[in-house]
Amino acid sequence: MGIRVGILGYGNMGKGVECAIRQNPDLELTAVFTRRNPAELKILTEGVKVCSVAEAPGMKGEIDVMILCGGSATDLPVQTPEMAKYFNVVDSFDTHARIPEHFDAVDQSARESGHVGIISVGWDPGMFSLNRLYANVILPEGKDYTFWGKGVSQGHSDAIRRIAGVKDARQYTIPVSSALEAVRSGANPELSTRQKHTRECYVVAEPGADLKRIEEEIVHMPNYFADYDTTVHFISEEELLREHGGIPHGGFVIRSGKTGWNTENSHIIEYSLKLDSNPEFTSSVLVAYARAAYRLNQEGHKGCKSVLDIAPAYLSAKDGAELRRSLL
Amino acid sequence: MGIRVGILGYGNMGKGVECAIRQNPDLELTAVFTRRNPAELKILTEGVKVCSVAEAPGMKGEIDVMILCGGSATDLPVQTPEMAKYFNVVDSFDTHARIPEHFDAVDQSARESGHVGIISVGWDPGMFSLNRLYANVILPEGKDYTFWGKGVSQGHSDAIRRIAGVKDARQYTIPVSSALEAVRSGANPELSTRQKHTRECYVVAEPGADLKRIEEEIVHMPNYFADYDTTVHFISEEELLREHGGIPHGGFVIRSGKTGWNTENSHIIEYSLKLDSNPEFTSSVLVAYARAAYRLNQEGHKGCKSVLDIAPAYLSAKDGAELRRSLL
Repeated sequence: MGIRVGILGYGNMGKGVECAIRQNPDLELTAVFTRRNPAELKILTEGVKVCSVAEAPGMKGEIDVMILCGGSATDLPVQTPEMAKYFNVVDSFDTHARIPEHFDAVDQSARESGHVGIISVGWDPGMFSLNRLYANVILPEGKDYTFWGKGVSQGHSDAIRRIAGVKDARQYTIPVSSALEAVRSGANPELSTRQKHTRECYVVAEPGADLKRIEEEIVHMPNYFADYDTTVHFISEEELLREHGGIPHGGFVIRSGKTGWNTENSHIIEYSLKLDSNPEFTSSVLVAYARAAYRLNQEGHKGCKSVLDIAPAYLSAKDGAELRRSLL
Repeated sequence: MGIRVGILGYGNMGKGVECAIRQNPDLELTAVFTRRNPAELKILTEGVKVCSVAEAPGMKGEIDVMILCGGSATDLPVQTPEMAKYFNVVDSFDTHARIPEHFDAVDQSARESGHVGIISVGWDPGMFSLNRLYANVILPEGKDYTFWGKGVSQGHSDAIRRIAGVKDARQYTIPVSSALEAVRSGANPELSTRQKHTRECYVVAEPGADLKRIEEEIVHMPNYFADYDTTVHFISEEELLREHGGIPHGGFVIRSGKTGWNTENSHIIEYSLKLDSNPEFTSSVLVAYARAAYRLNQEGHKGCKSVLDIAPAYLSAKDGAELRRSLL
């Protein structure tokens, strides 16, 4: 029998977790939990039940790890500590500023129940955080840079959709190549918001809408677009669906630092992702950490952890000797 | 008082460790140990003693972690298990095929004495191994690629120097750009040795030597050059010292993998290093893991570990709450 996994929330990420579990033979999907009517939810995996979220507590003992696939704004702050009463839990909480309080809430719940919770799993926070940490400890004298994209920003796409006369929209965040090259050269440039990323918007307007006004509203929107060079393309709904239906993303974490008695030598550490599907990649990271949560709990650990607290070997189904032989 | 570190072996790497310790205020250099005559060894740090390696066992209790800076061929297989009797130890053992037996030897010694040993620390093995592991657990269906360079290969440079008529030489290993681009495209190419790297040699010949013969001997040398496209440049000794005095290196670890119910989405994870000084970068990794060795031992851990077994947070002088706030 494999590690028994539950999925709470069946949007893009929940479906991604379902797919990722199929790629990991030591894990098995036990049930999908939803706040919708379970009878109306069709999942991909044959023979796996769909349950109401209210049934979850009753399934304590049948599920080893619950993977939470809700949103960070309102779902996870409530769901992760609640589910940690019954299961080991993994989530992708990504509101950076609120991580400390979320950590404390999950920690308290998981300690009381004797479970392991791993929060903020994904790529940023997640793999990008790990790479920032590794690069910082190796090169204490240096400078960090993070670039995002090219990829779809859900938040920025939503912001455009809220403008009157906009039927649909897709916004791409794009790192500026010359800025990336300057960082890679070791020049340690100071880069403004505008110098690091551009924003490209594909907008479907309602018939008869004032395109000039929509474009002005987009490019001057505070916080979202005003500080960036923004390009707006009006396209048809067909083109949007055909050419911009995916959810790609990615980015770069770069640290540029110095070593030597007189800091005479420069080094560049770069980690990058190019992802066809942002939610499926995040899901794949969640599933690897679900394995770690289960194994740590089996060894007697409890409480909340982040990716920074997990020894990499716990993520793999292979044992230590095999990892040393094949990957070290 | 900081974590008290000893250095055994004072070549390029030992000197690099000395420099790295100065960049980490929570560590202090206690002594440098040498097999040479200590009176003849001048180190960079004021007020730190140079001792004979025979004095090391007597300094048990004065040093928290010994960083071993010898070679993998003959030094480390003996020194690391020996020093683990008295200290926590960290080494950069890099003979991939012999890692399992080295691990066992250090493990036995460290368990008996109650110390922690961390072996094969550096960038390959080391940071590259970590990145292979993380990428493999996230994308179980995929393919790994490692490219090295552009950088100086000490082994290949030495091989050229052994040819009759060669006074000095420097060999650069260079990844083939088109191969890198093919991998990054997600095409999952099968690449031969020749397709992945080229070799560029800068050779100072003895006066009157037969340059044609030297070049032939280089490009046809089995194992070292015969399987590669190799370019040989004859240059003056002055030019060699002026233009090729550094020890740069680096490389790329890339995993290309698929996710989705029908593995319809492609992802590329890439980690790369561009290093002015190979030994100083390796040394900087060693020093971060020295901190981890000490902290793990303080918590009661003992035995041998590799980078795969160390939770990233142990590498940082910052505590968990600060790391979550600043890096996650």
